[in-house]
Amino acid sequence: MTSTPPSPLFSQRARKLTSSAIREILKITQRPDIISFAGGLPAPQGFPVEEIHAAFDRVLSASARVGLQYGPSEGYQPLREWVAQDMRARGASVSPDEVLIVSGSQQALDMLGKLFVDPGSKVLIEAPSYLGAIQSFSLFEPEYQAVPTDDGGLVPEGLTDDCVRGARFIYALPNFQNPTGLTLGLARRRALVARCAAVGLPIIEDDPYGDLRYAGEALPSLLSLGREAGATVIRLGTFSKVLSPGLRLGYIVAPKPIISKLAQIKQATDLHTAMLTQMAVYETVKDGFLARHLPGIRELYKNQCGYMLDAMARDFPDSAAWTRPEGGMFIWVTLAPHLDAGQLLQTAVERRVAFVPGAPFFAGSVSQPNTLRLSFVTVPEAKIREGIATLGQVLKEA
Amino acid sequence: MTSTPPSPLFSQRARKLTSSAIREILKITQRPDIISFAGGLPAPQGFPVEEIHAAFDRVLSASARVGLQYGPSEGYQPLREWVAQDMRARGASVSPDEVLIVSGSQQALDMLGKLFVDPGSKVLIEAPSYLGAIQSFSLFEPEYQAVPTDDGGLVPEGLTDDCVRGARFIYALPNFQNPTGLTLGLARRRALVARCAAVGLPIIEDDPYGDLRYAGEALPSLLSLGREAGATVIRLGTFSKVLSPGLRLGYIVAPKPIISKLAQIKQATDLHTAMLTQMAVYETVKDGFLARHLPGIRELYKNQCGYMLDAMARDFPDSAAWTRPEGGMFIWVTLAPHLDAGQLLQTAVERRVAFVPGAPFFAGSVSQPNTLRLSFVTVPEAKIREGIATLGQVLKEA
Repeated sequence: MTSTPPSPLFSQRARKLTSSAIREILKITQRPDIISFAGGLPAPQGFPVEEIHAAFDRVLSASARVGLQYGPSEGYQPLREWVAQDMRARGASVSPDEVLIVSGSQQALDMLGKLFVDPGSKVLIEAPSYLGAIQSFSLFEPEYQAVPTDDGGLVPEGLTDDCVRGARFIYALPNFQNPTGLTLGLARRRALVARCAAVGLPIIEDDPYGDLRYAGEALPSLLSLGREAGATVIRLGTFSKVLSPGLRLGYIVAPKPIISKLAQIKQATDLHTAMLTQMAVYETVKDGFLARHLPGIRELYKNQCGYMLDAMARDFPDSAAWTRPEGGMFIWVTLAPHLDAGQLLQTAVERRVAFVPGAPFFAGSVSQPNTLRLSFVTVPEAKIREGIATLGQVLKEA
Repeated sequence: MTSTPPSPLFSQRARKLTSSAIREILKITQRPDIISFAGGLPAPQGFPVEEIHAAFDRVLSASARVGLQYGPSEGYQPLREWVAQDMRARGASVSPDEVLIVSGSQQALDMLGKLFVDPGSKVLIEAPSYLGAIQSFSLFEPEYQAVPTDDGGLVPEGLTDDCVRGARFIYALPNFQNPTGLTLGLARRRALVARCAAVGLPIIEDDPYGDLRYAGEALPSLLSLGREAGATVIRLGTFSKVLSPGLRLGYIVAPKPIISKLAQIKQATDLHTAMLTQMAVYETVKDGFLARHLPGIRELYKNQCGYMLDAMARDFPDSAAWTRPEGGMFIWVTLAPHLDAGQLLQTAVERRVAFVPGAPFFAGSVSQPNTLRLSFVTVPEAKIREGIATLGQVLKEA
């Protein structure tokens, strides 16, 4: 970890920043001789290049001067309508003015930090949780409180009166969570929204991977269950995993008074998301393209996940345990309690394999250094076998 | 002005947000029967549609899987190199790692707020200043202190020991300022950077309009003068006014330790700016396109500005005074002291003419309600004459 010498002029939040573990590791993984299970990148062979190219071409031919001009902070209206329609098709009654378009759902986290978090505000978070959310919320200096989790994800009974008192929101990833790959079951979803409705606690439902389910049955979103139960749910969606992350396009679905505040925050943050991008993505998805496109990505990820699980069963020591995701991009590994994945990363990288140590994913609780995250999506089958064999060897030696 | 009922869960900063004057006015200006001098939109006939279309086409044909994938938080390296080269051509020795690409320079303001501002931090600002900057910084709850200004822009002698003590930065727009259209002369630029170097005060130089000079001589940037004088200058640039605002692309030039912190903030804020956009803009500008493109925009804006100044000389009352910009998009009008431009806006809109009242542009000082901002760039010549005649009538009646 490197850090900039603190300047007396920097803000408190900026002085606390140090270079993140993921940043440092991503630098390593860019070396071509490394087999990297560390990245969070979608497989580029899943990008629908022709369709996106054709969509940009249509917008720049027919509506360039709209696409290249300033636009509304809330987003391009037809795309807001498409998102609302998509939510309705999944069982949540959503109107277009309950949708705000953002520059990737990471930006939604930043805006929600601005909306809800004062220095010292209590924020409830799964342990472990998405590192990018921890980085984003941390700029607003909350006090994290971890919600108890087990093999079934977060435990709604853990939301005791003490736990929820004074909390601004709970942040949850119900589908194939990053980093654990775990999915929250239906009974727990119902219990979670009922509890949050009862105590007036907003839920931020971050669901970047929900469409990447390749096993088991799709479950209703916290948004749809929450609206039935009277809970305030703020749902984050993204086109990053179903189309392309480099376009930086996502959306927030929330009740109108929250969207109204977020539109003002969006204006102060970057005025609005690029119109051309919004129009081209709308052109790409408007006629049901995703329903034709997604099965191919799911098949790809299912196979990749299978290769890795098979290799782990063969090569990992008995002392290691790991999750078996029903979708998404990640497997979470728990090593013998005395092992430190951060130290093992050094050895692994010397042997040209990379992963992300689990410790930085914990906020507001004792971190578990004997954990690590593996991504299976971008590495070819033969390299997965080779990398997992090497990693198994490193673990056995440790 | 409307506002959302405050929620006890919202942050302090969010509770202070009310719908902005510009937001409300932009809604009015979208009515086709209104002659609007209120907007800050560049003229869409200046967008180089064919060149941008061709650039997207090239990137999506040759490098789509790079353009559609996640990218580095600092930005697309060839574009960083282009910006550094452009700065060197203008007399400031800048290396590519002193450049960070952002999603429009509004985002730079948000990131600089994060970097420098704690609640209550002193921030020095021109009075009046860019409303978007006030909105952006205000989310981080600074105490503004106005720097004295006159017809020549900010007065460096106003940076007394009392004024600069404890300040985190000074925010300045030296060229054709928004909202006044005023330009800071060379002697004042030198005095400003010398004073800031002496007291260790960083300067944020926001220069969205610098390339839109159609009269007078180009002046050296605060960045180039500041580097000679030993001042810390953080320069914001944008492609919004020279190519297209809807692409949302800008950049920050600053010393490496500041860029390093900003890269971490950028990662937490939205990971990175869209790769496809960065690559397409690089493709558009890399071979000197702007040098061929800008004369046409300057000519257009010069003529538009001339139409408005001529009409104002003819139709405005003697009690009004206004600036004569050498570039940019705005004219600033000062009315007789007893008039309130906010009240006059009601009358003007009833007669189908819109402008922006000056009061919201003032932060940290007594606001001047007898001021208003006119944009001359998007309204056709005949409508400028018609609108200014109507506005002159409204002013004379008041």
